[in-house]
Amino acid sequence: MNSKTNIKEKLELINELWSPKIIAEIHGLHLKLAKVKGEFIWHQHQNEDELFCVLKGSLTIKMKDKETIVNEGEIFIVPKGTEHQPFAAEETHILLIEPTDTLNTGNAKSDLTINEPEWI
Amino acid sequence: MNSKTNIKEKLELINELWSPKIIAEIHGLHLKLAKVKGEFIWHQHQNEDELFCVLKGSLTIKMKDKETIVNEGEIFIVPKGTEHQPFAAEETHILLIEPTDTLNTGNAKSDLTINEPEWI
Repeated sequence: MNSKTNIKEKLELINELWSPKIIAEIHGLHLKLAKVKGEFIWHQHQNEDELFCVLKGSLTIKMKDKETIVNEGEIFIVPKGTEHQPFAAEETHILLIEPTDTLNTGNAKSDLTINEPEWI
Repeated sequence: MNSKTNIKEKLELINELWSPKIIAEIHGLHLKLAKVKGEFIWHQHQNEDELFCVLKGSLTIKMKDKETIVNEGEIFIVPKGTEHQPFAAEETHILLIEPTDTLNTGNAKSDLTINEPEWI
């Protein structure tokens, strides 16, 4: 990335839900943008911590022992090996920071799995 | 970090300029918040790429061969080994993402160097 990136302009390019797109890479981590709504599947990332930053809306991250509501302007990290299920009642925009080899569905490969997320 | 972090609340805790404070750590990288105004010193980070995200205001990043104006909602990465000088005409709030051992003044140690940035 030799030029600057405008987050809002990148978000406008995203049409699908639950399909993170890469906007930057730094030291083995990707920054990804996603639009989400409804309930994703339960999954975990065996070796990857996953940082969620909510840009617009509200994301509920359900875990086995608690749930955390992450609102606009808030950050939450799901540690590796932690079963979690993201949920958003309304369309919500998020920034993810996670290792470049992180699969969106982690250990729960399914039709929702995106094997090679695209750059936008 | 087992709980969520509110970026605006953390920014309110920062009183000094050019003094990045850590708000999160993920896979060897820190997310840091800083308030900046005026001109910082020329420096480079020999081994560390440094990601700037402007949360409020506008940051000019001067490099030897060009300068980039990074506005609110924009991201820019200064590659390792690249001499740069950040400048902000008005108070500007930034999020930095960089390896945990990154010094704010890189190779240009001075009175401005913060050897052990604090968590807030």
